[in-house]
Amino acid sequence: MPGRHSLSEDDSAAVIAAARACAEAARPQTLRHFRRTALTTENKDGQGFDPVTEADRAAELAMRDVLARLRPDDAILGEEYGRSSGSSGLTWVLDPIDGTRGFISGTPTWGVLIAASDAHGPLFGIIDQPFIGERFEGGLGLARSEGPGGEIPLGTRPTRTLAEATLFTTFPEVGSEAEARAFMAVANRARLTRYGMDCYAYALLALGQVDLVIEAGLQPYDIHAPIAVVEAAGGLVTDWTGGPAVDGGRVIAAANPTLHAEALAVLGEALGD
Amino acid sequence: MPGRHSLSEDDSAAVIAAARACAEAARPQTLRHFRRTALTTENKDGQGFDPVTEADRAAELAMRDVLARLRPDDAILGEEYGRSSGSSGLTWVLDPIDGTRGFISGTPTWGVLIAASDAHGPLFGIIDQPFIGERFEGGLGLARSEGPGGEIPLGTRPTRTLAEATLFTTFPEVGSEAEARAFMAVANRARLTRYGMDCYAYALLALGQVDLVIEAGLQPYDIHAPIAVVEAAGGLVTDWTGGPAVDGGRVIAAANPTLHAEALAVLGEALGD
Repeated sequence: MPGRHSLSEDDSAAVIAAARACAEAARPQTLRHFRRTALTTENKDGQGFDPVTEADRAAELAMRDVLARLRPDDAILGEEYGRSSGSSGLTWVLDPIDGTRGFISGTPTWGVLIAASDAHGPLFGIIDQPFIGERFEGGLGLARSEGPGGEIPLGTRPTRTLAEATLFTTFPEVGSEAEARAFMAVANRARLTRYGMDCYAYALLALGQVDLVIEAGLQPYDIHAPIAVVEAAGGLVTDWTGGPAVDGGRVIAAANPTLHAEALAVLGEALGD
Repeated sequence: MPGRHSLSEDDSAAVIAAARACAEAARPQTLRHFRRTALTTENKDGQGFDPVTEADRAAELAMRDVLARLRPDDAILGEEYGRSSGSSGLTWVLDPIDGTRGFISGTPTWGVLIAASDAHGPLFGIIDQPFIGERFEGGLGLARSEGPGGEIPLGTRPTRTLAEATLFTTFPEVGSEAEARAFMAVANRARLTRYGMDCYAYALLALGQVDLVIEAGLQPYDIHAPIAVVEAAGGLVTDWTGGPAVDGGRVIAAANPTLHAEALAVLGEALGD
């Protein structure tokens, strides 16, 4: 695997500008369908409940149009339209609506995920919540949010023990029985556990509002942008064994290394590793 | 018990104006503390996790100041400062921050609950979400919301069966084991179950975005405003036996009578009634 992709200051500015242009292009496409009764959902995998909306597709196409114009040499990996190749070494990893279940329920906890990644992982990422009008950016020297509360710098908090920690997840909705048990082993030691926040949970971790996010069954496009945002804020994102999280699967995000180590140990013990 | 409190058109306008003034007064008091690191939480009941914040108290005091000025003859029941008596037959039922766990986690799913009630229940209610800037009003001829999406009329949706329904709750966090089992009996028949939305779940029901909210362990001040908003939107709010929900406890809110009856039957069977 090659080393980290090196970006000049101008390159970095161009990547940041393209990511923001993607977020701006996606907003009207998602909001046009959010809370509209005519929303159609399809069953993508033929079983279970995996809604795919018009908004998902329209938002990804809008972002692909932006990238075709601004970043024609970069590759793209998108939830709805898969891979398209590039020559630059950079790949845009796009999830037009992360949290489709929240989206079709009207909750403002879904987000548009945009990351610019090299072969090792994200260099820059955005978590955008169009309805609230809130955006979280991390990487290439930035760690910031903007929204109804104004512009606020990102920064994780120094919570040292699980007993003091607030834990977020999409569980009990996602994960195998063994994964749910491992999650509960952590939850039982945490001060407070909350559910159902989708990608917004990673944004709250980066804002220093919560301490841990633990999930399973993720796809790469679910986690690249959160990795960039959380790491820029001083946190860590790994799989449940402490390895890279860029391929998705079982993911843990923590506010700091001390808390990360304690939670990993509990997960490992519960899984019988 | 006396009949419903009768309000002239002028009386109604005054009640609505006072409720809105309460919501306006509470907003800066909650937002001043939301996502601030200096937030202090206290343990109200000496065990478990029941955060009480400065914001809770400041917001209730701000609303009581409004009512002392605009509605001096009405009684007040507030979460933080209890009962104060009145002579008008109207009681203001106030929960300055419903969803304190969400509040201290940074999620924009908490709300300020304001209801004007007679001896039978709420005549008018507001669910206000200050961070998003979203407000839901129901009763005295109104059924409306305003927020980032503009002004939108409230109206529940016609979902006829549990198999098509989206269900919300604060479970698995709240409720006894028997209550959790009964809830799960409904959840297992529902199309989609989501967690952790606090009072925002009732607002989404009234907006026609979800179909059911089922909770337990509620206080009167948790449910008066949601009752007013949901009923004005065409929905029903009762206890788990179909009786009045104004005293809190086990509560079910449904988009329409057909769905309400099916869910009640499942709850009753699971509880062994």
